[in-house]
Amino acid sequence: MITVGVVGATGYTGVELLRLLVQHPEVSIKAVTSRSEAGTAVSAMFPNLRKHLQINFCEPDPALLAACDVVFFATPNGTAMNMVPELLSKGVKVIDLSADFRIKDVELWSHWYGMQHACPELVADAVYGLPEMNREQIKKASLIANPGCYPTAVQLGFIPLLKNNLVDTDSLIADVKSGVSGAGRKAEIGTLLCEVSENFKAYAINGHRHQPEIVQGLNQHSARPVNLTFMPHLVPMIRGIQASLYATLLDTKTDLQSLYEDFYKEEKFVDVMEPGLSPETRSVAGSNMCRLAIVKPQDSNKVVILAVEDNLVKGAAGQAIQNMNLMFGFDEGRGLEIVSVLP
Amino acid sequence: MITVGVVGATGYTGVELLRLLVQHPEVSIKAVTSRSEAGTAVSAMFPNLRKHLQINFCEPDPALLAACDVVFFATPNGTAMNMVPELLSKGVKVIDLSADFRIKDVELWSHWYGMQHACPELVADAVYGLPEMNREQIKKASLIANPGCYPTAVQLGFIPLLKNNLVDTDSLIADVKSGVSGAGRKAEIGTLLCEVSENFKAYAINGHRHQPEIVQGLNQHSARPVNLTFMPHLVPMIRGIQASLYATLLDTKTDLQSLYEDFYKEEKFVDVMEPGLSPETRSVAGSNMCRLAIVKPQDSNKVVILAVEDNLVKGAAGQAIQNMNLMFGFDEGRGLEIVSVLP
Amino acid sequence: MITVGVVGATGYTGVELLRLLVQHPEVSIKAVTSRSEAGTAVSAMFPNLRKHLQINFCEPDPALLAACDVVFFATPNGTAMNMVPELLSKGVKVIDLSADFRIKDVELWSHWYGMQHACPELVADAVYGLPEMNREQIKKASLIANPGCYPTAVQLGFIPLLKNNLVDTDSLIADVKSGVSGAGRKAEIGTLLCEVSENFKAYAINGHRHQPEIVQGLNQHSARPVNLTFMPHLVPMIRGIQASLYATLLDTKTDLQSLYEDFYKEEKFVDVMEPGLSPETRSVAGSNMCRLAIVKPQDSNKVVILAVEDNLVKGAAGQAIQNMNLMFGFDEGRGLEIVSVLP
Amino acid sequence: MITVGVVGATGYTGVELLRLLVQHPEVSIKAVTSRSEAGTAVSAMFPNLRKHLQINFCEPDPALLAACDVVFFATPNGTAMNMVPELLSKGVKVIDLSADFRIKDVELWSHWYGMQHACPELVADAVYGLPEMNREQIKKASLIANPGCYPTAVQLGFIPLLKNNLVDTDSLIADVKSGVSGAGRKAEIGTLLCEVSENFKAYAINGHRHQPEIVQGLNQHSARPVNLTFMPHLVPMIRGIQASLYATLLDTKTDLQSLYEDFYKEEKFVDVMEPGLSPETRSVAGSNMCRLAIVKPQDSNKVVILAVEDNLVKGAAGQAIQNMNLMFGFDEGRGLEIVSVLP
Repeated sequence: MITVGVVGATGYTGVELLRLLVQHPEVSIKAVTSRSEAGTAVSAMFPNLRKHLQINFCEPDPALLAACDVVFFATPNGTAMNMVPELLSKGVKVIDLSADFRIKDVELWSHWYGMQHACPELVADAVYGLPEMNREQIKKASLIANPGCYPTAVQLGFIPLLKNNLVDTDSLIADVKSGVSGAGRKAEIGTLLCEVSENFKAYAINGHRHQPEIVQGLNQHSARPVNLTFMPHLVPMIRGIQASLYATLLDTKTDLQSLYEDFYKEEKFVDVMEPGLSPETRSVAGSNMCRLAIVKPQDSNKVVILAVEDNLVKGAAGQAIQNMNLMFGFDEGRGLEIVSVLP
Repeated sequence: MITVGVVGATGYTGVELLRLLVQHPEVSIKAVTSRSEAGTAVSAMFPNLRKHLQINFCEPDPALLAACDVVFFATPNGTAMNMVPELLSKGVKVIDLSADFRIKDVELWSHWYGMQHACPELVADAVYGLPEMNREQIKKASLIANPGCYPTAVQLGFIPLLKNNLVDTDSLIADVKSGVSGAGRKAEIGTLLCEVSENFKAYAINGHRHQPEIVQGLNQHSARPVNLTFMPHLVPMIRGIQASLYATLLDTKTDLQSLYEDFYKEEKFVDVMEPGLSPETRSVAGSNMCRLAIVKPQDSNKVVILAVEDNLVKGAAGQAIQNMNLMFGFDEGRGLEIVSVLP
Repeated sequence: MITVGVVGATGYTGVELLRLLVQHPEVSIKAVTSRSEAGTAVSAMFPNLRKHLQINFCEPDPALLAACDVVFFATPNGTAMNMVPELLSKGVKVIDLSADFRIKDVELWSHWYGMQHACPELVADAVYGLPEMNREQIKKASLIANPGCYPTAVQLGFIPLLKNNLVDTDSLIADVKSGVSGAGRKAEIGTLLCEVSENFKAYAINGHRHQPEIVQGLNQHSARPVNLTFMPHLVPMIRGIQASLYATLLDTKTDLQSLYEDFYKEEKFVDVMEPGLSPETRSVAGSNMCRLAIVKPQDSNKVVILAVEDNLVKGAAGQAIQNMNLMFGFDEGRGLEIVSVLP
Repeated sequence: MITVGVVGATGYTGVELLRLLVQHPEVSIKAVTSRSEAGTAVSAMFPNLRKHLQINFCEPDPALLAACDVVFFATPNGTAMNMVPELLSKGVKVIDLSADFRIKDVELWSHWYGMQHACPELVADAVYGLPEMNREQIKKASLIANPGCYPTAVQLGFIPLLKNNLVDTDSLIADVKSGVSGAGRKAEIGTLLCEVSENFKAYAINGHRHQPEIVQGLNQHSARPVNLTFMPHLVPMIRGIQASLYATLLDTKTDLQSLYEDFYKEEKFVDVMEPGLSPETRSVAGSNMCRLAIVKPQDSNKVVILAVEDNLVKGAAGQAIQNMNLMFGFDEGRGLEIVSVLP
């Protein structure tokens, strides 16, 4: 049994963490912080937690957090980096769900996130928490940079091709689509039901912050630097990411189906579908699964990888708990073997 | 550990049963039957079960079912009544999620369901599986008539008023609203996304089969027979029932809030909200909770009870498992303490 | 051809007015005001107007508005009352879509809207713009208080019963449901897609501002004062209001179907459906129709009136233009004979 | 004033045609046929047409249709080809919204549509009804093959690049997304609200019938044959198509924005947005507009064209009426200058 703190739990990533943590058999939730809501019952804001979690939001008191075995940050970008050094110095493990520690090139990070980094010296130590790629480092890490939602799906989809040098690295296109919860729980006109329901569009067409994170990740598994066209779209639904990933094959004869099945055969949270099937987002809603399919269009030298995940689970809170499980020596799937609700 | 069979698992109630059963620590699923899908992997039809359930649909073979400790029927009305007598005779417990055993007056049942009853002699023995009202009988039952979705919410909402003789029994109005999954998984134009999305209407305005079931249940707890106006509506969403229940108070001074809190204080799956709050369907989606609120409009002799539940869980599969837990001596909440996914 | 100004056109009622006005053959739009958006092209905010309306938002300049034949206020409550006196004094006709002039009892208005009225002397002169009830006064009016969305549906539904003294006036229940656009175009968490989609609930359960407006309207057509229980609900869709209206009949023998058909037989924008049909909100989306059905539950002394309308059209902008047509002597349906888009 | 017949008006394309035709000032609807619904009022099936269209479905009587000036076919594939020759021989103009006459290579058509063509000799004469490309031929045509929904958006998006020889014709990728109405009004499980709402996926991943139609159209405007990867996706909404079209530029210096603006500057129903804007499907819902944007990702030799349309209007019924207007010498936009409903 470990004690856990969650900083900034008033957003969608936060409540999702809490949903998973209250059901995790090895976890005791010690502190759930929010400056604006301190004193309010957590279940007053999130009624799904009524009868499951009896705790109030509290101020982000460093002493309280320092008494936890692990602290999750579900805060806006730029918050974790100010609190993490102290926690690490007191021996607390940290899993940061924001972007503060994801990009190794601190200048590039500053460019995309529009601020100076508060503890650049920690960035190199942070382990990028994609368990399927970095499992051993995660087990030994003190600080996890939990991957972004799009980067998780796109990397799990493209890396087997890149690692095996099968595609033209200049040809990568990621046409990705996300449910609206990816935009967070913020009072904004752009994500009102009346603005996004019964509507579909590309967004962030002039550049999205997940692009450099994805490219960094892909380059680690590619012999040649990749050139990626990344286009995000907003789907009129709450949860789910679907990525259609296109590349030009250098060699059209490799049995890609077998290659993917082998690549992920030991993975609990990656599911390679049989040929001809298309993964759908609802099949992973609320679960930590990333589901993949490999498509080779007829008479073509292209390959299309289809990937789905729940942006709030495998793309955020679920992956964070998967990382926690690895860091504390629990079974990697502990507390995460949840079946999606369908329909 | 008990062995379980599910007859007719190709509908929404069926897949919901399977979702809950695969996560239930005391259950081993032995048979999942479907005439039309025999031989197909269950997870090929319901991809949320991939990696969770490795079993194929099979023919509804009586011998196979007779080897189970309990058999659930998630079949269309009129199927269970033909198979139940044999199973009972072999000592198998049966939980019927269809309407075959719900109405004690067999002629009334025939009138509403348009068929002759195949085993009228069993109807009297069947226990109506609303645990909050009939817990002790359920524990000893061999055959459970699992309540309908609307009847569960309406009865849990109205019964405390009726039992305490607080309302004019001629004044009951139930304005109920259901997500589309209540209509089942059937190829019909009326429930296509393009027909029901971005749309709202009353339906079955000339009479709904749940009316006699509700009236039967309410009358059991009322000193005088009730007169109920029941109007169902279709909500453009997948899951959830909300009921707004209206009655004229005989006595406007009773503290109804305390009365409801006391009435349900030992119940794990009924949650009476604090005054001023309104229950929302998403707060119970995927969970077995029924959430209630009591409203007394200003300067009025009316009371309004608001009730929500997930029609496929507390209104069907979850309640069925709650009944199973009682029948087999498990903790009543075993396998059902699932937190709703929010958002 | 008349010249028209629209004050406060950045909300949903405003853009709906503009959609209808640009297609109206007798109208020239002269001014569309918004303090916050002055200088921006209207079509930059509302891309459905690209290629249809070439005008920028401007400051609400009194001189500019005074040069219009009619000015619509699509402003938050409390704005119109400060500008209307000057416009009226300059001979401009005013149609106020906010609540400033709807309630004749100024103190009651202050109680519900939480402010002092700026021109109480004008309230008595304002004509309540429900054309089916007040057509002749509207034709001669200078100032129209355009009805609220719920009040339009509830009054059109109940008035034929009340006018004919057919129901117990203590028994009225209005269970009403609205799409999310009724909440307006405001940056608020409560109406984000992730909060209201795949969800249903009652809201404003402790009292809604439309209650006194409805009661005022019903009382004008009732021999005895009505007692109304009014319960609004939020539907996960953009547009549409559905009202299920319950009352206890004093006399169960009257042919209500014929009564309603006669009552509304000359009305262009009220459609009484044949017995057995249920009106659905999508059948009026984008149109100015209010569609009604009369239901008499079996063996009961209750009647249920079902009413649907588009909250932004018959419940707001369309009705405003219907009023404009009457005030300027155009055919009442001019510019409003739009067929709903289905599906 | 011309007389019009519609064959097969019980689907979504059919009701959309009727919506537009009843509002068209030059049209009188003479016959609306449906074998299965003959005798039923059209407005009984489509309540949005109540008070707008008083006509019953009738049998598809050749004599009745032959008395029309123009007949629209909104039938399943394979029906029109059996009726068209007789109508043409009697001097009736025909606009076929199905796929029967779209593909010039009759064998290729047979391969994709799985049947023999009933009148291959007419295929060559049929004019492909994409007005922006084939306006002059359409004016003189007797038989129009109305384009498919995806082909309209993809061709309008890609052709300016191809015509100007600006892209590698081997590099074309069309990642397209459609609302569910594209699947038609058919009793099928796959398009139930409970199956497709709150869900997103690619479909027809092994090949879609619109692929050969698009390739045929693109090749007509390309110096070299194109190689197109075409991947359709299903969006949980009713209406709308969004296409994200990717290509590798041969020359990265051309001012593509100006090129597109010039290319379409005379077009009433193509709207090229300013740089930085992304077209959204709701901005064209119910209207005949195709809205485009041109995106050049930074530091890349790729171009992305974003295109949206309403699949039932510019992608079907609206384009059909645009063709009719051209064929009969009406203003091209007659009856089509409808403003989208937003929100």
